[in-house]
Amino acid sequence: MEAVRVPSIIADKLRPHARATLANVKKFVEEECIPADEVFEAQLALHPDQRWNSMPPILEDLKKRARELGLWNLFLHSHFQEGPGFTNVEYTLMCETMGRSHVAPEAMNCSAPDTGNMELLAKYGTEAQKEKWLQPLLDGKIRSAYVMTEIDVAASDAKNLALEMRREGDEYILNGVKWWISSAGDQRCRLYIIFARSNPNDPNPTKRHSIILVDSKTPGIEVIRPLRVFGFDDAPTGHCEVHFNQVRVPASNIILGEGRGFEIMQGRMGPGRIHHCMRAIGCAERGLDYLIARANKRMVHEAPLANKGVVADWIARSRIEIDAARLLVLNAADKIDAGNAKDAMSEIAMAKIYVPNVALAVLDRAIQTHGAAGLCQDFPLARIWTYLRTVRIADGPDEAHAAQLARTENKRHHNIIDVIAMQEATTRALMEKYKINPRPRL
Amino acid sequence: MEAVRVPSIIADKLRPHARATLANVKKFVEEECIPADEVFEAQLALHPDQRWNSMPPILEDLKKRARELGLWNLFLHSHFQEGPGFTNVEYTLMCETMGRSHVAPEAMNCSAPDTGNMELLAKYGTEAQKEKWLQPLLDGKIRSAYVMTEIDVAASDAKNLALEMRREGDEYILNGVKWWISSAGDQRCRLYIIFARSNPNDPNPTKRHSIILVDSKTPGIEVIRPLRVFGFDDAPTGHCEVHFNQVRVPASNIILGEGRGFEIMQGRMGPGRIHHCMRAIGCAERGLDYLIARANKRMVHEAPLANKGVVADWIARSRIEIDAARLLVLNAADKIDAGNAKDAMSEIAMAKIYVPNVALAVLDRAIQTHGAAGLCQDFPLARIWTYLRTVRIADGPDEAHAAQLARTENKRHHNIIDVIAMQEATTRALMEKYKINPRPRL
Amino acid sequence: MEAVRVPSIIADKLRPHARATLANVKKFVEEECIPADEVFEAQLALHPDQRWNSMPPILEDLKKRARELGLWNLFLHSHFQEGPGFTNVEYTLMCETMGRSHVAPEAMNCSAPDTGNMELLAKYGTEAQKEKWLQPLLDGKIRSAYVMTEIDVAASDAKNLALEMRREGDEYILNGVKWWISSAGDQRCRLYIIFARSNPNDPNPTKRHSIILVDSKTPGIEVIRPLRVFGFDDAPTGHCEVHFNQVRVPASNIILGEGRGFEIMQGRMGPGRIHHCMRAIGCAERGLDYLIARANKRMVHEAPLANKGVVADWIARSRIEIDAARLLVLNAADKIDAGNAKDAMSEIAMAKIYVPNVALAVLDRAIQTHGAAGLCQDFPLARIWTYLRTVRIADGPDEAHAAQLARTENKRHHNIIDVIAMQEATTRALMEKYKINPRPRL
Amino acid sequence: MEAVRVPSIIADKLRPHARATLANVKKFVEEECIPADEVFEAQLALHPDQRWNSMPPILEDLKKRARELGLWNLFLHSHFQEGPGFTNVEYTLMCETMGRSHVAPEAMNCSAPDTGNMELLAKYGTEAQKEKWLQPLLDGKIRSAYVMTEIDVAASDAKNLALEMRREGDEYILNGVKWWISSAGDQRCRLYIIFARSNPNDPNPTKRHSIILVDSKTPGIEVIRPLRVFGFDDAPTGHCEVHFNQVRVPASNIILGEGRGFEIMQGRMGPGRIHHCMRAIGCAERGLDYLIARANKRMVHEAPLANKGVVADWIARSRIEIDAARLLVLNAADKIDAGNAKDAMSEIAMAKIYVPNVALAVLDRAIQTHGAAGLCQDFPLARIWTYLRTVRIADGPDEAHAAQLARTENKRHHNIIDVIAMQEATTRALMEKYKINPRPRL
Repeated sequence: MEAVRVPSIIADKLRPHARATLANVKKFVEEECIPADEVFEAQLALHPDQRWNSMPPILEDLKKRARELGLWNLFLHSHFQEGPGFTNVEYTLMCETMGRSHVAPEAMNCSAPDTGNMELLAKYGTEAQKEKWLQPLLDGKIRSAYVMTEIDVAASDAKNLALEMRREGDEYILNGVKWWISSAGDQRCRLYIIFARSNPNDPNPTKRHSIILVDSKTPGIEVIRPLRVFGFDDAPTGHCEVHFNQVRVPASNIILGEGRGFEIMQGRMGPGRIHHCMRAIGCAERGLDYLIARANKRMVHEAPLANKGVVADWIARSRIEIDAARLLVLNAADKIDAGNAKDAMSEIAMAKIYVPNVALAVLDRAIQTHGAAGLCQDFPLARIWTYLRTVRIADGPDEAHAAQLARTENKRHHNIIDVIAMQEATTRALMEKYKINPRPRL
Repeated sequence: MEAVRVPSIIADKLRPHARATLANVKKFVEEECIPADEVFEAQLALHPDQRWNSMPPILEDLKKRARELGLWNLFLHSHFQEGPGFTNVEYTLMCETMGRSHVAPEAMNCSAPDTGNMELLAKYGTEAQKEKWLQPLLDGKIRSAYVMTEIDVAASDAKNLALEMRREGDEYILNGVKWWISSAGDQRCRLYIIFARSNPNDPNPTKRHSIILVDSKTPGIEVIRPLRVFGFDDAPTGHCEVHFNQVRVPASNIILGEGRGFEIMQGRMGPGRIHHCMRAIGCAERGLDYLIARANKRMVHEAPLANKGVVADWIARSRIEIDAARLLVLNAADKIDAGNAKDAMSEIAMAKIYVPNVALAVLDRAIQTHGAAGLCQDFPLARIWTYLRTVRIADGPDEAHAAQLARTENKRHHNIIDVIAMQEATTRALMEKYKINPRPRL
Repeated sequence: MEAVRVPSIIADKLRPHARATLANVKKFVEEECIPADEVFEAQLALHPDQRWNSMPPILEDLKKRARELGLWNLFLHSHFQEGPGFTNVEYTLMCETMGRSHVAPEAMNCSAPDTGNMELLAKYGTEAQKEKWLQPLLDGKIRSAYVMTEIDVAASDAKNLALEMRREGDEYILNGVKWWISSAGDQRCRLYIIFARSNPNDPNPTKRHSIILVDSKTPGIEVIRPLRVFGFDDAPTGHCEVHFNQVRVPASNIILGEGRGFEIMQGRMGPGRIHHCMRAIGCAERGLDYLIARANKRMVHEAPLANKGVVADWIARSRIEIDAARLLVLNAADKIDAGNAKDAMSEIAMAKIYVPNVALAVLDRAIQTHGAAGLCQDFPLARIWTYLRTVRIADGPDEAHAAQLARTENKRHHNIIDVIAMQEATTRALMEKYKINPRPRL
Repeated sequence: MEAVRVPSIIADKLRPHARATLANVKKFVEEECIPADEVFEAQLALHPDQRWNSMPPILEDLKKRARELGLWNLFLHSHFQEGPGFTNVEYTLMCETMGRSHVAPEAMNCSAPDTGNMELLAKYGTEAQKEKWLQPLLDGKIRSAYVMTEIDVAASDAKNLALEMRREGDEYILNGVKWWISSAGDQRCRLYIIFARSNPNDPNPTKRHSIILVDSKTPGIEVIRPLRVFGFDDAPTGHCEVHFNQVRVPASNIILGEGRGFEIMQGRMGPGRIHHCMRAIGCAERGLDYLIARANKRMVHEAPLANKGVVADWIARSRIEIDAARLLVLNAADKIDAGNAKDAMSEIAMAKIYVPNVALAVLDRAIQTHGAAGLCQDFPLARIWTYLRTVRIADGPDEAHAAQLARTENKRHHNIIDVIAMQEATTRALMEKYKINPRPRL
């Protein structure tokens, strides 16, 4: 088995403990999780009518195994004493490795949206909230959902999110519709972390929303239907449409207080995106592995496909693009480690845009190299591709991030214009000094 | 003036001395070299008939200035006691900065092919050779050419290079034609480092060539004509076709001995490519600066071009691609620092392929944003673009490097195929353990 | 409702009858078929355990309706007296329109692989074969499969197809495995047209295979499993793996005779590819419609998405690429009409390569414009995308067609090289005539 | 010599006379013009100081020859009795052929901007104006310039063009600066057709400008300098910056009258763009020829480059893209023939955007296949590339045309949205009819 690909530039930043853990994660993923991916699917398919009511047994077995191996809750970097204390750079490489397998992140209790939700609780929750929700999440006993997206509101337009959250006595009452709620199909999902409009009249549009913890079994909550992604339903967790009809929640379930939804949301986002990106790189590396394996096994006209110049070119480009993508993510992770996620906003945006596009291209080449086989369930490629395709949309489409990145770059324009003006003036002065006519005529 | 863009991931690797030098290089380039670029062109244009016989006076003034500022021979990392001892990572960032200006590299005596030639002399030359050629090169008194390319031989096919080098008594006699000899148009160019076929009958095709030092004024050498690059002649140094007709050279001018041409050539290449790449990144950053400046100054229908979504998207993509490119180069540089150029062969190839393509795209967007103005001499963009276009070909075309990179990746195929087979076997075992029919029928 | 987009260049070639039929097809597709697509899916989903054993009733209703409207078997151009006699150019535009709906082609009895199979029977079948199989196909009573693809053989390598077909008395016995057999999951599919290796020892590798008609209910045939495309199973027709175990077939079922498989296969291919391409263009136009609708309805920051420069650019590019694609297909169709499919081989290959790539790009942009909604079952976009993705692989991957096209272009090289040599000689003569030194020295 | 590539779809539209002329154009271009291109350059280079004061003699010889062959003024389709009466489709194919050579268009008196200017005079000029300017242009005695572009105004923003045109008695007085005035460097250029702001206070911004004919030798006109395109100056015609200082012009030189500049400009544009596009396709075909020739002659590691998969892929793609591009242009030309340029606005825009981008890609691949040789004067590739690069900017940048095209497409949005709404309503009705719950719950 090959070692995890650690770029030279980052090698010094991996401490021995992280390096050892990374090797263990790699071994567990390759030898136990990837082989289990297909078993997970097969167990799910055994009882079509139970797709949303059971959990393939192999997953709990893997979770047990991961705890035995000490590969549990690896993400808890800086927020807890209990955490393993990995830096973002270190954990990020583990994410890449976990991303190679469908079941690995959950097996190690490092799967989204739980990791982000646990961090949110750790950072902003009261002791009571932590005891009630964080502990069972850390123990892998329950799962959680982050309930934000609405049908009629663009992701980049969060200030228009409209799920109503009205105070009545000691309770809040929720009304409205959310969708794309990952994990909401999962019977083990007990916690909804809901982004709702509590203060619609606040003059500051970023102070109108709150975040509140809601038990998924509260009356009035109805999980309507799973949304399929290119035909995949991602059972048994799914991405669901959920209706809220007069849902009553204790007021004490609010996080930080009314109007602080944006603040909390932004605190949750940065590192999570980086981890998504690295899982996507794990996907891309696995796609490249399959591409190389197929190209060297498949014979066409008595020669391996790998001899074809176009296929070789795909392999070379894929290697370059993946390595460039990984460096972008690691650089963003390092900047978060060095300061905070806010400082690294541009670096995170660059990774968020670049990585899934590159990974999709690699998977597409891998699929094409497999021919029809690459489209179907005999290989993990099509499923991985659809996952990657969602990453270009989740947490805001590429275009929104690119527009933001351009705005940041454009802030440099005064400075640049001044420097160019200075240079032009200096040129004119030099022309004079050297007695040259700066614009000789024809 | 903005500081040099130092990625977070590399920040620790810049020692204080290098950081200070880098800042000085930046200041010198922005304030003195870039303004001089146009003056250099104007001085050259004053006497069309002297284009190949004079050197614009501003260059010597800049060289003097650079020496005063201690910005001279910055490239001499590890080969000399005299050198400033910068790592490749450190020097590479200086190269980026120098690459922003046409005259800056030569002003600091850090221009190709002289740097590579000086390293070659330092590494492989005898004391006598160093005294005769290396010292005046270090002093900026003469220039040198690396004489390798031939009209009928592909760059990736060096074993077919055919310039004849025949021993006769104490001399070698050279016969043949070379072209694209950069600097050969320059009156100050005194040293030719020539790659020639001395041992055509050696059974090992990589032992047939030698490298020999030749005084450019030796009888029988004729500089035939400059080759233009998209209309630019790059006077007064140029890229020339040179004929060798019974050129007699003292046998002692050979480097290392007969048949060692390939070995020396390979020793010369690695870091040089990295430095070319970083100069190209400097070009790209300057292109992006002009793009941003223009987009924010130019009004169309009463709004700045920067407001156009497509232009903003160009800016965002350019930022991402440049940053990814820089990280690829820095990672390669770091790997050279950590080991040697041979170990970093794949990393160097990735940078060599990725960087000029990205930089060309950025410059093309900058040109398009300037409209017709971007095509002409009023902006440095078209000239920079043509330089970058040569980088996709110089030292071997992209495609040759990609093919080599694919061969390296394909070496992994046995290992990958074995891991996949192990995983499939494990899946079958798990299916059995969990009593699942692995291929249920319709 | 908009009229079908008929390029100016082709307008004269549409006869009034075809123009009227095209308008009727358009009306039927937009008003009856597209609304039925979702109903078809919903009926299929009613009984998950009957997915492969029933046919949504709406389909038979639509077929009845199409016959009433005279929109039935439109494809039978030149092979029958009974046929409507449309040219390829005319029928091709109908294909584009039908391609907009999932159910439309079958509703009009114009769906692949039946159309190609019916043509094959019409062209090559005996009277008895036509009576038995062609008539019920023309009547829409049964469906048929084209049974060619094998797991271990690349599509471009058909001479290695290995399903065994052995003569024994008055019968052939078939043994082996095929996959990606479209329609094989369909209970109504009664005819398999099988490509098998009957004469493995023929010295000419293109004479080793035969095509034989097989009743799908023959003992020894086992439909093993449907292959999913991304997450779609395309029930109830599907794409299946089928095993053949001692399947006995009357010898009279052979088409044309032993060893003529390649000849028949090639006769079947040309126009069919064109029709696939035009259905793909119908998909692309529908994707662009959804893109435009969404961009003009969806508000972000109080303005429609259509105002965003990047989205506008997607719309413009999509329009250009679709129109270019349609012209390529129509030009190929016209060339078939003017001569035959063999003459138009390069034109067909160009369309085959260009069209699905363009259509995929359009659909991808449409999906991105819809955000997460575009990925799921609420819009037809993801399903259409997966269909288009198969087109880059079906009937040979892009790369095989491109390689063939390059070989055809390269055949021109002698001629081109001669012309350039003539021009260079003429230049030299002119230089002499005008007394110019052709290679002035520096 | 190969025949001109006439797509099947257009074959019927070429009348015998046009077909014969096309063949003659082809023969003249390949055998006489292309060989002369290099001679033209060489004659120009003989006297560097006369670059802008002489005209290479070979051009007049070719013009004489073209007249003898009856290949003169081929563009005068419908505006004159004297014209040859070719349709746009017919003439367009001749343009493609002429576009293969640098000197061919002028040799046949079919070069821009003269053709557009002659059409303008023919359409809008008075008899006196025609006699004075049109006749010598038709005779190839003088050349003309179209004087529109200004430094500070974006091409897509013509209403801000600011050259002042003030009435004083029987004269207009012009003051201001123009640039990128093609032909202005040419000593034979006697006519300037100037777009100027005569009525700055007209409330309608498209009524503020006029077009006026000006003798280039009028006092107050100063040709300041040629603008270079990349490193090419396009001497002796050039693209110049021209200053107008109190230039007095007879009032009778105005075209149509004050305030009609936009109307005339728009009338001039359509077909001209098509012809530019077809010349660009001629460039692309010639680039592909060189690519194929080189790929089949150049040996690398003992095999021709054409065997490399990547090069073969370039050839295939180039063929597809060029053929698609030609069909787009021919379709636009046909639509102009069938109606007028205004109706074909979208088709023209599509060609204007698609063609140069495709042609640039082909030339870039051709250059890359030639290695360093492709960059220099030994092949026509670099020069052709720079010409094509200007086409993405001339007459408005790609992005302006794409934005306009998107606006046109977006006008369809009401219609599309209505159709989709109708379809959704029909689906709901069908669901009811078939008794299906349209949104079944989980």
